[in-house]
Amino acid sequence: MKINIPESKHPRIVIIGAGFGGIKLAKALRKTDCQVVLIDKNNFHTFQPLLYQVATSALEAESICYPVRKIFEGQKNFYFRRKTVKKIHAEEKYIDLGKDVTLEYDYLVIATGARTNFFGNEGLIVNAMSMKNIIEAIDLRSLVLQNFEKALTLTNERKRQGLMNFVIAGAGPTGVELAGALGEMKQKVLPKDYPELDISKMNIYLVQSRDRVLPALSEKSSARALKYLENLGVEVVLNTRVLDYHGDYVQTNTDQDMIAKTLIWTAGVEGAPISGLGVDAISRGNRILVDEYNRIKGHENIFAIGDVAAMETEDTPRGHPMVAPVAVQQGEQLAKNFNRLLKKQELRPFKYKDKGAMATVGKNKAVVQIGKRNIGGFVAWFIWMLVHLLALVGFRNRLVVLMNWTRNYFNSDRGMRLIITPFELSKAKKKRREQYGVGLEHHVTEELEK
Amino acid sequence: MKINIPESKHPRIVIIGAGFGGIKLAKALRKTDCQVVLIDKNNFHTFQPLLYQVATSALEAESICYPVRKIFEGQKNFYFRRKTVKKIHAEEKYIDLGKDVTLEYDYLVIATGARTNFFGNEGLIVNAMSMKNIIEAIDLRSLVLQNFEKALTLTNERKRQGLMNFVIAGAGPTGVELAGALGEMKQKVLPKDYPELDISKMNIYLVQSRDRVLPALSEKSSARALKYLENLGVEVVLNTRVLDYHGDYVQTNTDQDMIAKTLIWTAGVEGAPISGLGVDAISRGNRILVDEYNRIKGHENIFAIGDVAAMETEDTPRGHPMVAPVAVQQGEQLAKNFNRLLKKQELRPFKYKDKGAMATVGKNKAVVQIGKRNIGGFVAWFIWMLVHLLALVGFRNRLVVLMNWTRNYFNSDRGMRLIITPFELSKAKKKRREQYGVGLEHHVTEELEK
Repeated sequence: MKINIPESKHPRIVIIGAGFGGIKLAKALRKTDCQVVLIDKNNFHTFQPLLYQVATSALEAESICYPVRKIFEGQKNFYFRRKTVKKIHAEEKYIDLGKDVTLEYDYLVIATGARTNFFGNEGLIVNAMSMKNIIEAIDLRSLVLQNFEKALTLTNERKRQGLMNFVIAGAGPTGVELAGALGEMKQKVLPKDYPELDISKMNIYLVQSRDRVLPALSEKSSARALKYLENLGVEVVLNTRVLDYHGDYVQTNTDQDMIAKTLIWTAGVEGAPISGLGVDAISRGNRILVDEYNRIKGHENIFAIGDVAAMETEDTPRGHPMVAPVAVQQGEQLAKNFNRLLKKQELRPFKYKDKGAMATVGKNKAVVQIGKRNIGGFVAWFIWMLVHLLALVGFRNRLVVLMNWTRNYFNSDRGMRLIITPFELSKAKKKRREQYGVGLEHHVTEELEK
Repeated sequence: MKINIPESKHPRIVIIGAGFGGIKLAKALRKTDCQVVLIDKNNFHTFQPLLYQVATSALEAESICYPVRKIFEGQKNFYFRRKTVKKIHAEEKYIDLGKDVTLEYDYLVIATGARTNFFGNEGLIVNAMSMKNIIEAIDLRSLVLQNFEKALTLTNERKRQGLMNFVIAGAGPTGVELAGALGEMKQKVLPKDYPELDISKMNIYLVQSRDRVLPALSEKSSARALKYLENLGVEVVLNTRVLDYHGDYVQTNTDQDMIAKTLIWTAGVEGAPISGLGVDAISRGNRILVDEYNRIKGHENIFAIGDVAAMETEDTPRGHPMVAPVAVQQGEQLAKNFNRLLKKQELRPFKYKDKGAMATVGKNKAVVQIGKRNIGGFVAWFIWMLVHLLALVGFRNRLVVLMNWTRNYFNSDRGMRLIITPFELSKAKKKRREQYGVGLEHHVTEELEK
């Protein structure tokens, strides 16, 4: 059964994914003679760079999520459907939306982004926390608070310690920002909330396989970030790799193993493609191989943009970095190319304009790199804040976020420390197994035996 | 196993429930020579009067929930435990917190509030929506939005209509406020979000068994509220009782039945007591019988305050109204009485100071009743807003709420229209069956047969 979308005399461009790339592309097509259909499983766009602030009770989910329909209010050629795409049928030019519902396209754009890469390790897949979407961020917020609520009720020191230890694997921007935010909670919020617990015993380990944090930034920025982290009480464990985890004990490749009920895995991302493309189309890291026009290898009218796309050229042999600016720029460029394509003009290749990198560790503590300039401290923090604030979609969100940040700045508070939807381990494990297709049969048996 | 709480030389007062009454009591005991232990299944207080704004995408949950630990920051004699109370063992003076964990008390205060009363109707219990806690409000928000997202994808007119019809049973303040807020969404938000749907076909039925809305207020206020509701496109169905509901068809006791995928039941509340009290202690509406000192019949050292308590005196033969001011005043009074009790002085009886009643229907549309004065329109709306804003616990919450309201006021927007945690019917049904102990065996069989 075809999904109910009005007929149009113009070609239909179907975009899968309402992330930075998909939204940008759909907006940029507003004056193009085409019908734009955007599909996402959520009815909102998520501002992923601030997920760690939701996970650490600094912002509410609603501040970084924005209704898709509101973004496109008044755009005549735009249609949104809240659906999950099951499969692409490239030969017949339609996508399968599940339950026998289908959607035909003239052009298809895959903008499905990335998901956490556990490198196939079943222990990690099932037991580690992740922070790539809003539900995972809310789960993490709940779990951190639940751990302390539970620690309070126990007398066994060892069990208490496990609940008060947090291991973050991977010291890229996400790991660093999360570790810093937890460090701030340890310093400012938790001692007030839990006077019965000795919060100085809380440990935040940031485990990094390489010899410095933020390896994508300069050595100067790395050194600065390291200092900031240590000042916030984060124990940075360099040159160490997490090998396995089964819920309470983090195994590494060195002598330093760690007892912890919480392991947050930020040490890898992979593309989140959709089945139905040729085998040739998938490259390393599960990303989709595209040419310099973001066209998928072997598919004349299917494109991919953003994290899920790997444009492997001489300059970028491993594709572009999986960051928001690439997605936004590819969305813009592809819109222009669609205009050319529909006028039968020649397409223009994508060129990435790298505007720099940044990460924030805590209040007045950030590192920013623009070209060869390294900025730190308050100035960097202020730039980071401004850039993120301006990038947030809606005026309301900006204002709420600014207000929360102002408040957090002056009284170091985290007003969102609410366990509204408690994290449930068994449900989370089951879901993760399904998502990553791991040990499902084994799991079902376990369930039945209960 | 006893839960881990420090020994104290002072008597221990255990309060169950962090609602208006429990919070007020625990705060008022801060200078009393006692140990205060507050138990709640959530780590936050919920400002229930604004739940309908969460349900209609006007406020985020975090604006009306406030961390318990933050409220009691610095109160030396205060301990909070996030636990569910399973049973009271009155003889042995301890409560059962599940999983063999127990908590002893010297004095116990039950402040567990109320839950929805479905009057034992299985169809309603399993299929109707309810709005008594934050999870239910979030579920309702999701469901309203999911209905429209789904309606879009269908071509069958009858099915579409079912998704676009909303029946609210019960025209007390909750029903009236919810109906009005849905009416505002119908007028201002949904036509912009769903230009493909004919939103004028959306129906909001407010079904009321008696001959006027807001029967607890004056006839003048009722008439005003009715006019406001009709102006917002709400169809008020008076003198009609909902008899049964099985998911798509609302059966009433008149000729007017309604097709609707959503029935919101606001037509009854009942006390939410805890098992373990004597049979004599429970009165009509599942409330706990207390004397004029809020002491429970037959239990010298157990008290009940707020919605769950029925102080049946000559003046109040059916107990006090189940509203926040009663809970707050009883909390205050009981704290004073504990001080007297510990000093072996005579207790003083509770006297309710009725400060009036109010309900808001929409922008500039509210009714307020203070003594014999009836106020309507903008002035009433402004009073309503001010009273609720001042009653909100935290400064941040007040500011965020005020900002959201200001924004909603000027552009009639509902920024929180996000389906973050989708409403899942089968899970909701199962949970409701468990909560109300209905047809569990039958249900389990169904599940296994799937």
